Amino acid sequence: MEDTVYELYYWPHIQGRGEFIRLALEDAGAPYDDVARDPARGVAAIRALLDASPDARDYDGPAPFAPPVLKHGRVALSQVANILGYLGPRLGLMPGDDAGRHRAMLVQLTFADLVSEVHDTHHPTSTQFRYEDQMDAARERAQAFVRLRLPKFLGWIERTLRDVGGPAQMLATGHSTCDLSLFQLVEGLRYAFPKAMAHFEPSHPRVVEVRDRVAERPRIAAYLASPRRLAFNENGIFRRYAALDLVP
Amino acid sequence: MEDTVYELYYWPHIQGRGEFIRLALEDAGAPYDDVARDPARGVAAIRALLDASPDARDYDGPAPFAPPVLKHGRVALSQVANILGYLGPRLGLMPGDDAGRHRAMLVQLTFADLVSEVHDTHHPTSTQFRYEDQMDAARERAQAFVRLRLPKFLGWIERTLRDVGGPAQMLATGHSTCDLSLFQLVEGLRYAFPKAMAHFEPSHPRVVEVRDRVAERPRIAAYLASPRRLAFNENGIFRRYAALDLVP
Repeated sequence: MEDTVYELYYWPHIQGRGEFIRLALEDAGAPYDDVARDPARGVAAIRALLDASPDARDYDGPAPFAPPVLKHGRVALSQVANILGYLGPRLGLMPGDDAGRHRAMLVQLTFADLVSEVHDTHHPTSTQFRYEDQMDAARERAQAFVRLRLPKFLGWIERTLRDVGGPAQMLATGHSTCDLSLFQLVEGLRYAFPKAMAHFEPSHPRVVEVRDRVAERPRIAAYLASPRRLAFNENGIFRRYAALDLVP
Repeated sequence: MEDTVYELYYWPHIQGRGEFIRLALEDAGAPYDDVARDPARGVAAIRALLDASPDARDYDGPAPFAPPVLKHGRVALSQVANILGYLGPRLGLMPGDDAGRHRAMLVQLTFADLVSEVHDTHHPTSTQFRYEDQMDAARERAQAFVRLRLPKFLGWIERTLRDVGGPAQMLATGHSTCDLSLFQLVEGLRYAFPKAMAHFEPSHPRVVEVRDRVAERPRIAAYLASPRRLAFNENGIFRRYAALDLVP
């Protein structure tokens, strides 16, 4: 089972939520199959996995609700934090003991909430309608986000890094998926909210320190320079819209 | 450690997200301390736990971002799904093996997304402003919710129950926290969106079957009849606002 290849099922044209999984697999140097990026399989492979009837499935347990999905043998898991909770101990990127894993999940799920709140800045009323059709509500939500929510999340992250002591990392047990996810959060926030991040970064030095440390890890640096790393764009979670790039 | 009492830190006047934790503890007959419901400690106890400096803390690891928090010895965890992932195997309400736990988390985290989407129907732009100050956006979001999102979630749940086969339960391994959480979702949705639920329930019989089965479990029935069960109200996640009670 541990030799079984990891298969990632995620939209092939965006970083999106799948990027948090890619970063963990890349940092560990784990071979993985980014299924839908293969044009011969594409997004049809995602639909086939989600929609298969029970007797046509090659995995056990509930069908995942939505991508990203990690498939590993007969295991098929959705939800970023859940996937990282499964991969983390296997890749040496999360403590293996019960309390340690759940503390890491506390961090990953708080990050997941931040990601959802970022998403809702451009889609406050419905994911089914375009940003252009909900711009007024988007501006209201983005304003509340950069003024109230973003500093609350960044403050909590900075404080958690400070509390650990020593080199900046989210868990006292060492480098983890949480640091890799924090790197992605900073990159995404810089892309989507450059003015707000320019405002907040000087007062959150440890957050920036983690971002820089992760960027310099050899496998991550190689990944970021490779064609496997997609560019941010206006179909992902982090989108750059001039109307939402507000000063806190 | 396993004899250490479970302490729940959650707002004392609402069911809210804490109710998913209460239902698991009640169903298992596990003694627990609902800390902030004790007037002598109240919400100040929540703030003290979240804000304590590292040397003043009686737990290890990151300070939780927000309630609900479960404290158990030196463990302090936030995020409903994470708490249920910790409690579940200990209370006999979740498989103890790695794959089984992550499959249960797939369900709990999908439910958590549904809960967040319910919350955002009355607070689409900011949790810091009142519902009354974002009613137009709320109505748009609620309309998209009852037309597009609620049937998608209910359809996935019904299909998952059907796929398991046999008596309606979310996991093939048996009764679990997932069924208890589904009970709470149905109760909350009936309260907040009675018209939409009257519309959808007939075509989702297994969802209703789980709700009824859970309501009849002796410890749950006793809990629901006790003063420990708070009433739904307009400060929680599930709120009844006439303007949002839309027909799909």
